Amino acid sequence: MLNFSCYNPTRIVFGQETIPQLAQLCPADAVILLLYGGGSIKQNGVYEQTLAALCKHTVVEYAGIEANPQFDTCIQARDLARAENVSFILAVGGGSVIDAAKFISLAIQYDGDAWDIPTNAARPTEAIPLGTVLTLPATGSEMNANSVISRSSLQAKEAFSNEAVFPVFSILDPSVTTSLPLRQTLNGIVDAFMHICEQYATRDCGARLQERQAEAILSSLIEVAPLLLADPDNYQHRATLMWCATQALNTTLGSGVVHDWATHMISHYLTAHHGLDHGQALAVTLTHLWRHKIEAKRERLQQYGQRVLGLSETSSAEDAICATEEFFHSLGVPTSVTDYGLSEADCLVLADAATADHLMVGEDRDIDGTAMKEILLASLNK
Amino acid sequence: MLNFSCYNPTRIVFGQETIPQLAQLCPADAVILLLYGGGSIKQNGVYEQTLAALCKHTVVEYAGIEANPQFDTCIQARDLARAENVSFILAVGGGSVIDAAKFISLAIQYDGDAWDIPTNAARPTEAIPLGTVLTLPATGSEMNANSVISRSSLQAKEAFSNEAVFPVFSILDPSVTTSLPLRQTLNGIVDAFMHICEQYATRDCGARLQERQAEAILSSLIEVAPLLLADPDNYQHRATLMWCATQALNTTLGSGVVHDWATHMISHYLTAHHGLDHGQALAVTLTHLWRHKIEAKRERLQQYGQRVLGLSETSSAEDAICATEEFFHSLGVPTSVTDYGLSEADCLVLADAATADHLMVGEDRDIDGTAMKEILLASLNK
Repeated sequence: MLNFSCYNPTRIVFGQETIPQLAQLCPADAVILLLYGGGSIKQNGVYEQTLAALCKHTVVEYAGIEANPQFDTCIQARDLARAENVSFILAVGGGSVIDAAKFISLAIQYDGDAWDIPTNAARPTEAIPLGTVLTLPATGSEMNANSVISRSSLQAKEAFSNEAVFPVFSILDPSVTTSLPLRQTLNGIVDAFMHICEQYATRDCGARLQERQAEAILSSLIEVAPLLLADPDNYQHRATLMWCATQALNTTLGSGVVHDWATHMISHYLTAHHGLDHGQALAVTLTHLWRHKIEAKRERLQQYGQRVLGLSETSSAEDAICATEEFFHSLGVPTSVTDYGLSEADCLVLADAATADHLMVGEDRDIDGTAMKEILLASLNK
Repeated sequence: MLNFSCYNPTRIVFGQETIPQLAQLCPADAVILLLYGGGSIKQNGVYEQTLAALCKHTVVEYAGIEANPQFDTCIQARDLARAENVSFILAVGGGSVIDAAKFISLAIQYDGDAWDIPTNAARPTEAIPLGTVLTLPATGSEMNANSVISRSSLQAKEAFSNEAVFPVFSILDPSVTTSLPLRQTLNGIVDAFMHICEQYATRDCGARLQERQAEAILSSLIEVAPLLLADPDNYQHRATLMWCATQALNTTLGSGVVHDWATHMISHYLTAHHGLDHGQALAVTLTHLWRHKIEAKRERLQQYGQRVLGLSETSSAEDAICATEEFFHSLGVPTSVTDYGLSEADCLVLADAATADHLMVGEDRDIDGTAMKEILLASLNK
């Protein structure tokens, strides 16, 4: 186990009919920026429940945060927040809205060029406090200090982490997720799965407990995913998925272990250049990256196959990779870039872009543009 | 899964050579009460490392917190802290020292009868902030808001939980635990094991993830315990045990599930009346309680046997209980009150005391003095 420091002060309020607790959780005298996305919260009742809980608070609304939240949109919201003297941000939505809220909460207080924040050119320590009502289990942003901000004019997608932006509280009511489209439910399952793998399918450092904790969430996801697809209105299955996604990236699994994150870094190019959903992009990358790195990851993948996938004691790392692809296919999730219309030429363009960016990621810092080319070409259906 | 709220703001600093970070973690302008026990920290180098880190701080020492910390001792420490205008408490030791620090941090600020705090007659919200340097992995007190205070003049052992006493930080350096006596190492393994069982071997409520998270820590403990006994100086094994013990009772496992805690409540009588170590008392209670409640716990125990203990798919709850006793015996931990010299008459006296206290505990609130009598008599070697 490596030395580590971990800290997570977010209060989770989990369960049915918890949104009314906003009345007590939001500071009484605050000017609240209610931040949300494209309006799905007006269809599923969350908007109505939120406003009802905040009937005695001062609320300013900003709607229109998009998937893969855009820098320019966030700056509009920041300017509104400054003009209205906002002192608390309530993000209602999925990871995109929460990531945007984190960036805005820092940007309100920051006097320099706000693009410094996602690019880590500056690390401000002052932020407006924020809370969340989660409507889409996937990114774990509701219980961590991470945020990813995109800027389409630069084809850029930048990640930062800052302790000042841990949500003060996050309300997780699984019942509001029953109305999610299948595609978003699947993206959530894949996203949580990938977050675990980035902290688990890496170089061994003797962290026995963390390995088993990762396996516990992977096993739960693999168990509940088909049950949920067969019975999308089942509260217990929704609750399991929601809590798995939060636990997958709330600092516990990542403490004291070697991280990978190459799958995420490669997938960002697929999203930025071809508009794949984050979950879709991850699923067409993971297993091909694993095959590329099989010698380094062999023992861990074998352990994963046997402990998580229930493969036999004689099963190999290759068997575990194939079984993972079968799992994704069983959910209807493609594992090939061909399924999203990409050609060999497209893959080469992406790899060239990564080379130009001096990409050098993964637990051994050996995934560069050349490695990415091999991985993406392997993801093409022959 | 049940509705729940969870919150844990303690910062963990884990690993080798982390004690010097006290210099930055403790507030520079504080008057620090350095609280410790019987002086083992002067043998293992922790006292020296602590004072070296705090060479620029103002430090007041109070030594002599005993195992199962006594109310009267804590009141002495409180009076010293008040006289010296202490503004921060640093607990250096195991769960007893940390539990004492939590009580003292509230008692300093509380004007009423301080016994109100452990008995939950009062729930003050003001506390002096505290940090810890953990030297004995066992209770999880380093990352939760719980404390147990004893008062021998009343044969009482009272537990309270209060968000105001979460440690601000806890330093966990596994290397300082290599000098622990075998008995304390064993008590730590048993204590962590029991904390998990109280939150896991209970009534089903569909919390699939939490069950697997509990199984992950149980499996890790069962895996590492014999390795550690065979190689007590092994840093990685010490690290695994230390992190298991913290994770066993830091609110994660207990969120959204039904709790038991009857084993703890019964074992408190064994400690208060016969002086058994906390871990010893738990180990002579657990499996006999499980047999007493086997109909209610059958499915969970069967699952535990198969997933954690590696028993066959046809194994029963009874098999899991026997295998648990074999596990404890393999470590040299007794599972019978007879091993500590208790007679049938002693068991009856304890059960009478519980009846007089109107004991009524467990996940079904059906463990009273009569049930406790049956459980303790079953714990006698025939």
